Amino acid sequence: MNMQVTILGTGSGGPFQGRFYTAQVVHVDQHLFLVDCGEGTQMQLFHSKVKYDRFRQIFISHLHGDHVYGLAGMLTSYALKQRTESLTLFGPPGLQALIEDQIRHSLTRIAYPLTFVDVDTAAHQLVFENNVVEVWTIPLNHRVPCSGWLFREKEQPRNMVKEKIETYGIPWSDIPAIKAGADYRHPDGRLLPNTELTTPPRKPLSYAFCSDTAPSMDVVHAVKEVDLLYHEATFSNEHIAEAAITGHSTAAQAAEVAKEATVGALVLGHFSGRYKDTGVLLAEAQAVFPHTFLSEDGMVLPVGGTIPG
Amino acid sequence: MNMQVTILGTGSGGPFQGRFYTAQVVHVDQHLFLVDCGEGTQMQLFHSKVKYDRFRQIFISHLHGDHVYGLAGMLTSYALKQRTESLTLFGPPGLQALIEDQIRHSLTRIAYPLTFVDVDTAAHQLVFENNVVEVWTIPLNHRVPCSGWLFREKEQPRNMVKEKIETYGIPWSDIPAIKAGADYRHPDGRLLPNTELTTPPRKPLSYAFCSDTAPSMDVVHAVKEVDLLYHEATFSNEHIAEAAITGHSTAAQAAEVAKEATVGALVLGHFSGRYKDTGVLLAEAQAVFPHTFLSEDGMVLPVGGTIPG
Repeated sequence: MNMQVTILGTGSGGPFQGRFYTAQVVHVDQHLFLVDCGEGTQMQLFHSKVKYDRFRQIFISHLHGDHVYGLAGMLTSYALKQRTESLTLFGPPGLQALIEDQIRHSLTRIAYPLTFVDVDTAAHQLVFENNVVEVWTIPLNHRVPCSGWLFREKEQPRNMVKEKIETYGIPWSDIPAIKAGADYRHPDGRLLPNTELTTPPRKPLSYAFCSDTAPSMDVVHAVKEVDLLYHEATFSNEHIAEAAITGHSTAAQAAEVAKEATVGALVLGHFSGRYKDTGVLLAEAQAVFPHTFLSEDGMVLPVGGTIPG
Repeated sequence: MNMQVTILGTGSGGPFQGRFYTAQVVHVDQHLFLVDCGEGTQMQLFHSKVKYDRFRQIFISHLHGDHVYGLAGMLTSYALKQRTESLTLFGPPGLQALIEDQIRHSLTRIAYPLTFVDVDTAAHQLVFENNVVEVWTIPLNHRVPCSGWLFREKEQPRNMVKEKIETYGIPWSDIPAIKAGADYRHPDGRLLPNTELTTPPRKPLSYAFCSDTAPSMDVVHAVKEVDLLYHEATFSNEHIAEAAITGHSTAAQAAEVAKEATVGALVLGHFSGRYKDTGVLLAEAQAVFPHTFLSEDGMVLPVGGTIPG
């Protein structure tokens, strides 16, 4: 699987009710990204067996405690493990002060390079890319500055047709250019068109994470046709007024966003502790957008694949 | 049981290795006190079934993250539960700034009365008392200002001999004074000595919590003859040099403190993650002080009673 998501916590703010707070690991090829870091994320990472030493970038949606209170502990643990690799933290303005004050007050020293990148939570912008993936902000509509994160695989190289390499005696040094789309000039003078030498790459995968938000057309535009959309569904229809006041969504509203954006699948999370049985949330969402699932702590979701039902 | 301790975490600082970080609940009659609050304390309280809404006082030994990074989340949870009761936090200077900065940066509002009491971590002083218990600081010897906590039940009232109430027709209004030690003047003029009317109370119980410390005679003096001593035992004899450098104790050193102080029983905790089998720590301590036990996450320890082996 080229892209998958490990769900570490599915609870919303409020007292701990048996679900851990929001945190997810997005896997893209060999790259691991942590998205949000509520209290207890370290504990959940331990049980998930994710190699969390490999995070080089962490993305924080906003500064409410249920999305960020696990971060100082994790950064401290890295320090105690003698981490040397750099780490970059993306989040709304204020993240740096929150973390640096906490580390300083608790008399801890971080020796590895730590960089903070303030993002514009009102924009849909590219904030990070490496050789396989781009990460974009998604403007969310919450009570405080809040950004979702869109992970979009880059266009893959075209696939070489192996027999053609032998047939034409193509040297290895020419293959990267051909995989990137170039035609090939044979030593005998013929120009071999790229379409004869390669097949198209698979469609790039995409995953969107929308942690805390009222339903928003900005979100619809930003997550258009992603393979998998994670959207908060804090409340059921019964509590729609509370959702509006607190800057959250009902399950049905999350499903409306998924439907408008024609995403491949919708996974819900950030459930209020009042719902002992989250079946009502699933039913209300599926009435709007059938391809909806509930996340659970510890679940691993393939992006573009079959979600466990 | 008049005094007992619920162990919420037994791990030391460093990456999470399957043991939660330090936190304990001390129960004295109907009063509940939280002692230290590492990341994940909320989660452990949830599983322990302790009614943690009833905490009115919280005692923090020092500001290292593994003893305090769960506090902001718990205070936030109280706010979201619309707590109105006051809460007093005892700890070294700096605790207030750590918590207030964290709450402020994460844009949370605490509406219930929150009071911080800075304690002198170099002294052995009474810092809190109610009708049943006194709490004293214990000067610990760590890398940063650090205080242990001694819970000492107050002298109990004497027990009335029920038959004497009937025999002499003692009115209920006179009984509190008699239980407090007064003689009773009978209406017929006789002075009935207290020793005829009452039996002595049971011995008050005491519990000492020493979170992070090198072995110290200050500790020995402060915990003299307590019924139960919790003492950190981060390392085994093999790592005695590392213990000294980091301001910690080996299990045998903790046992020496227990032996010098002639305590009733010793329980060890704050184990380094390197010991997959903590049996070595137990063996080294028991060679010095036989009545030693290992704490485990979730364990409930009766003070002055039989510790689960």
